[in-house]
Amino acid sequence: MSVLIVGSIAFDTVETPFGKVEDALGGAATYASCAASLFSNVQMVGVVGTDFPEEHLEVLRSKGIDTEGIERTEGKTFRWGGYYDFDLNQAHTRYTQLNVFENFNPIIPDSYRDPQVLFLANIHPALQLKILDQVGTPKLTLCDTMNLWIDTTRDELLRVLERVDVALMNDAEARQLCETWSLITAGKRVLEMGPRIAIIKKGEHGALMFARTSGGSDSLKFFAAPSYPLEELRDPTGAGDCFAGGLCGYLDYTGDFSLESFRKAIVYGSIVASYNVEDFSVERLKWVSPEDIATRYNEFMLMTRFE
Amino acid sequence: MSVLIVGSIAFDTVETPFGKVEDALGGAATYASCAASLFSNVQMVGVVGTDFPEEHLEVLRSKGIDTEGIERTEGKTFRWGGYYDFDLNQAHTRYTQLNVFENFNPIIPDSYRDPQVLFLANIHPALQLKILDQVGTPKLTLCDTMNLWIDTTRDELLRVLERVDVALMNDAEARQLCETWSLITAGKRVLEMGPRIAIIKKGEHGALMFARTSGGSDSLKFFAAPSYPLEELRDPTGAGDCFAGGLCGYLDYTGDFSLESFRKAIVYGSIVASYNVEDFSVERLKWVSPEDIATRYNEFMLMTRFE
Repeated sequence: MSVLIVGSIAFDTVETPFGKVEDALGGAATYASCAASLFSNVQMVGVVGTDFPEEHLEVLRSKGIDTEGIERTEGKTFRWGGYYDFDLNQAHTRYTQLNVFENFNPIIPDSYRDPQVLFLANIHPALQLKILDQVGTPKLTLCDTMNLWIDTTRDELLRVLERVDVALMNDAEARQLCETWSLITAGKRVLEMGPRIAIIKKGEHGALMFARTSGGSDSLKFFAAPSYPLEELRDPTGAGDCFAGGLCGYLDYTGDFSLESFRKAIVYGSIVASYNVEDFSVERLKWVSPEDIATRYNEFMLMTRFE
Repeated sequence: MSVLIVGSIAFDTVETPFGKVEDALGGAATYASCAASLFSNVQMVGVVGTDFPEEHLEVLRSKGIDTEGIERTEGKTFRWGGYYDFDLNQAHTRYTQLNVFENFNPIIPDSYRDPQVLFLANIHPALQLKILDQVGTPKLTLCDTMNLWIDTTRDELLRVLERVDVALMNDAEARQLCETWSLITAGKRVLEMGPRIAIIKKGEHGALMFARTSGGSDSLKFFAAPSYPLEELRDPTGAGDCFAGGLCGYLDYTGDFSLESFRKAIVYGSIVASYNVEDFSVERLKWVSPEDIATRYNEFMLMTRFE
């Protein structure tokens, strides 16, 4: 079984109150793939420039990620620069340089065309549609998106939503897409756009899951999970991508796509995100262990239970 | 057993996208008392002016609230005017008229001096200290506060915190009091100020509870609860007070002040708050039934569980 993940691969220059990195390995597909690799086999599709060092590919491969689908193109790798103030929930963008991403035409390698789980990480919805056309019939298809596409390519995004099983987005994006301040209303409206499950990521406030009724499981239609209570975090970049990647990896590993399984997957996604924000880039994910994940899963259960 | 609740009683003029009320029954003590009365016996202390109609007292008495401690003074009742935009999490104050509250010197009736639970709702911390001096030794003492007191009477507020078992405040207040953006750090710092339990209210994002270790129950030290997922709410005024009141009422009713019991109390508080915001003033609390509360408690369990 495997998860196919498509999205951006980037050089991130990030400043937070706790430090700074320049041209560090980043991008939605990078974070999501590293996260998913903690649970399952990952195939990764994206584009990098000639400036992308072999050592970054080595990082991905050391996590067991199949990098055959990473295309190297003449030009510079996609770059993002940004900073966070003490309100670590809010990223401030300094620059976005699309570079090789500008003319990216994703081609899925033949060996990737039959994944169990397909995750369309944040990327232009036109590219997400191209991926959907190239991949057979995954058992589960998920997508993420961002404010820019809701603003500028809404129609294409809606076509993507019609074709996926699960839509992931953050709270601000859900409000913007659904034109409502209420996240509860937004979650329900996303379900009307196509997906059978909508997951709204709320950063430090956790995540909400909305599902369409499916035969008698009404009581499972809504799920609310807090985030892991971290006191020290250094860089929130990629938290949402790690959440999604961890979720996809866990679902692929179990092959169980029931609502009960999604609940656990959301908790695992939150745990991976909580580790990732403890350091810059994907540094922390390099050495997170299965025991680390199990420990926080247990804590998650204890911190949410009541009789 | 009984809960003694001290705080403001007000005429609220409130406008939301869903309607408007003028000079409606409001105030922290009013909301908290109505909420607590759903679970236990409530004694209420506050001050009103000569303009306060008998029918408002009747509303309180119809909930079984003992109103002997409500003092009527020459002058006008405390008034608050405000509005909410579509972002219903944020109250915008139009005016605050202290009126009879300005010279309020709370006297606790003799029959009130031995409550099991004492809740110092939001009120000047100097008054909270005066109450603490008049009441014997309740089994549990809780307080709430607001940004104004953190700003202007910090020292007196810190003296209150040294003398209570439980501190309640909202997220912005916790950040302000503890001078940190992290709510996790804030929760821990509040515990260093005296209380053995700190509860941070996060509006639509639920609540967090922090406790000092108490003999082997490390696993219960932190609790995170979501809020009830409401799609339609008309007026968020008093939600935090209803949360606190419901919590106090449940704890008094059970007489169980363990961390397990606090977890349940937080959920009951959230449920009462969720009903209250469905209508203006305390209208909805007039006819919420034990069955209503039990239904949402069950839903709360279902929406937070994972294996």
